[in-house]
Amino acid sequence: MTRLLITGIGELTTNVASAGDPCGTITDAAILIEDGRIAWVGGADPAPEAETDVLDAAGRAVIPGFVDSHTHLVFGGDRADEFAARMAGQAYAAGGIRRTVAATRAATDDELRARLKALVAELHAQGTTTFEVKTGYDLTVAGEQRLARLAAEVTDEVTFLGAHVVAPEYADDRAAYVDLVCGVMLAAVRPYARWIDVFCETGAFTPAETKRILRAGIAAGLRPRVHGNQLGPGDGARLAVALGAASVDHCTYLSDDDVAALAASTTVATLLPGVEFSTRHPYPDARRLIDAGVTVALASDCNPGTSFTTSMPLMIALAVREMGMTVAEAVWAATAGGARALERDDVGHLGVGARADLVILDAPTSTHLAYRPGVPLVHTVVKDGVPLR
Amino acid sequence: MTRLLITGIGELTTNVASAGDPCGTITDAAILIEDGRIAWVGGADPAPEAETDVLDAAGRAVIPGFVDSHTHLVFGGDRADEFAARMAGQAYAAGGIRRTVAATRAATDDELRARLKALVAELHAQGTTTFEVKTGYDLTVAGEQRLARLAAEVTDEVTFLGAHVVAPEYADDRAAYVDLVCGVMLAAVRPYARWIDVFCETGAFTPAETKRILRAGIAAGLRPRVHGNQLGPGDGARLAVALGAASVDHCTYLSDDDVAALAASTTVATLLPGVEFSTRHPYPDARRLIDAGVTVALASDCNPGTSFTTSMPLMIALAVREMGMTVAEAVWAATAGGARALERDDVGHLGVGARADLVILDAPTSTHLAYRPGVPLVHTVVKDGVPLR
Repeated sequence: MTRLLITGIGELTTNVASAGDPCGTITDAAILIEDGRIAWVGGADPAPEAETDVLDAAGRAVIPGFVDSHTHLVFGGDRADEFAARMAGQAYAAGGIRRTVAATRAATDDELRARLKALVAELHAQGTTTFEVKTGYDLTVAGEQRLARLAAEVTDEVTFLGAHVVAPEYADDRAAYVDLVCGVMLAAVRPYARWIDVFCETGAFTPAETKRILRAGIAAGLRPRVHGNQLGPGDGARLAVALGAASVDHCTYLSDDDVAALAASTTVATLLPGVEFSTRHPYPDARRLIDAGVTVALASDCNPGTSFTTSMPLMIALAVREMGMTVAEAVWAATAGGARALERDDVGHLGVGARADLVILDAPTSTHLAYRPGVPLVHTVVKDGVPLR
Repeated sequence: MTRLLITGIGELTTNVASAGDPCGTITDAAILIEDGRIAWVGGADPAPEAETDVLDAAGRAVIPGFVDSHTHLVFGGDRADEFAARMAGQAYAAGGIRRTVAATRAATDDELRARLKALVAELHAQGTTTFEVKTGYDLTVAGEQRLARLAAEVTDEVTFLGAHVVAPEYADDRAAYVDLVCGVMLAAVRPYARWIDVFCETGAFTPAETKRILRAGIAAGLRPRVHGNQLGPGDGARLAVALGAASVDHCTYLSDDDVAALAASTTVATLLPGVEFSTRHPYPDARRLIDAGVTVALASDCNPGTSFTTSMPLMIALAVREMGMTVAEAVWAATAGGARALERDDVGHLGVGARADLVILDAPTSTHLAYRPGVPLVHTVVKDGVPLR
């Protein structure tokens, strides 16, 4: 048995709810890890048993590792020029996602793998210990399978997003593309994926198409999630609830009925403020969702078009600055919230039995994640009980 | 002679203006450094002479080191609780700066030095190679001298800011405090400082007091700078111009006359978007200033009350997202602009003869500083020709 005892934790966020504190905060705490799982958590340093490694947090804060439940990490090229032009006020140049599709198709496995590994290293360095990765930048059967295979090399949380946009080859026959996604493409990707996702939005897929694709995925054993209500009002959120989706992501334009439906469901509303930061679209109203009883997650949506960031600390800072969340709510949403959005109960918290995925911050409290925006505050990342650096 | 040749630079920002490009951008470039100064810059890799160290940038972008011309790095305590309460919508609790004054007075030299060194390490890790540090969190003669002495241990750019707010002991006799600042306190701090600064704002110092204090500083051989027009319209900017100040900082509330006066002067408008990010105040309009011909700098204003960040990359991202600057303008303002605000011609650019202070980015272009918000993109910092890490 391997044992690691972390002592001297100034402020420990466990996310094991206690009376009046959903974050389960303990001050002057310690954690004992055995074989990669949390074995004991408490408010004082116990005497370590024999053969226990000891790590002194020296008063620093410790939080669960971030759970980034929405990323698009497998792609070719970048779109820095498009970003700069958009920020300079130039009209949106058509082609967006399709430009990345072309670059992704042109990239070799090794090129995609090198980029993916660099982004995973970034995620780890910034405290993310669990992350989802979507396909959706190839849109051919073999290509989507390739992206899923590469994603599965770095995470268990692979999402089939053949329904990102209609593939360019099917621009004049979208019904045939939906058939492909529901049939041969789904079958090809299925062995690598746990999730199926559809971009339900004007310009992407209709509610009827979304329903058909998600049902095909569910029938094949995948769990559903939805991109919805990003660019305008729509059926995405209610459809996600009706199909029992783990999450509906974006959620900028929600009606009162949408919010009520989410609040009465187990579907998480995943907010992606990196997108609003990088596109100047309005931020979603997290306060309204939380006050209505909706479970909220924060994720990066890391992608080369609308949010090329891997920084969960920045998502927390933006959620606090722009979306009406308290710091505690934002930290919870970036950890426990992300775990809910991935239907995971082994991560996102530091209760006994959880995976020992945690971050020692270069700060006395987790408030500093928002109080010190942009500053790299990750001191040590522990993944499955092993310090990564 | 020590020689370092940096080859394989994908995109080099020199800030040596060329036709149509104030940033003096060169692609596929190399730089030769001799004894800590730029000896040669060009568009192809020269054959290195004997005894030259070679650093391959491998296609990465290189920019001048950031020049952070406005920080308050010497202080005790923090105000994370005040930040969290403000973000949660609670009314501003009085006491702000004075709370830090009390904590600073209570701290030992070693405590202040330890915090200061940690913040300087953060600055360096994020690519800042020149930075100013202000006094202003003690407000006694011996205490302000102590802060200036500690600041002088880490930078040549020390600013005397006894006129931050009226010291609590002088709450009922502000004229006596102004006398003190202009007299004994100035004399005590003078040996350590290069600059004198006044917070000219309702609630801090009046225009008449500002003028008197700055003139006393100028007479003692210090160069003037001003905090002005942050919380409302006022005389700060015009007063800065009239006194030949290097910079007026904040500049959120400027009249057309203020802008015209700045445009006709050598006074830089230094914008501090970390403050607006952390207080939810409106951002200054950089576009209006640049279009009018004003020289704009970006700085962090790192301080525990209103902007506890050391991240110049975040300042660039915010300037682009919120203040109407292009990425190129923001990168210039965070390097060459900061140098102008400190009246330095040896930093902020990479022309021949400049100090070899530069940053190799983990990115192919400097656009990524805004395109990839929150992501630590500093690969290597070179200070006086020596790689820091």
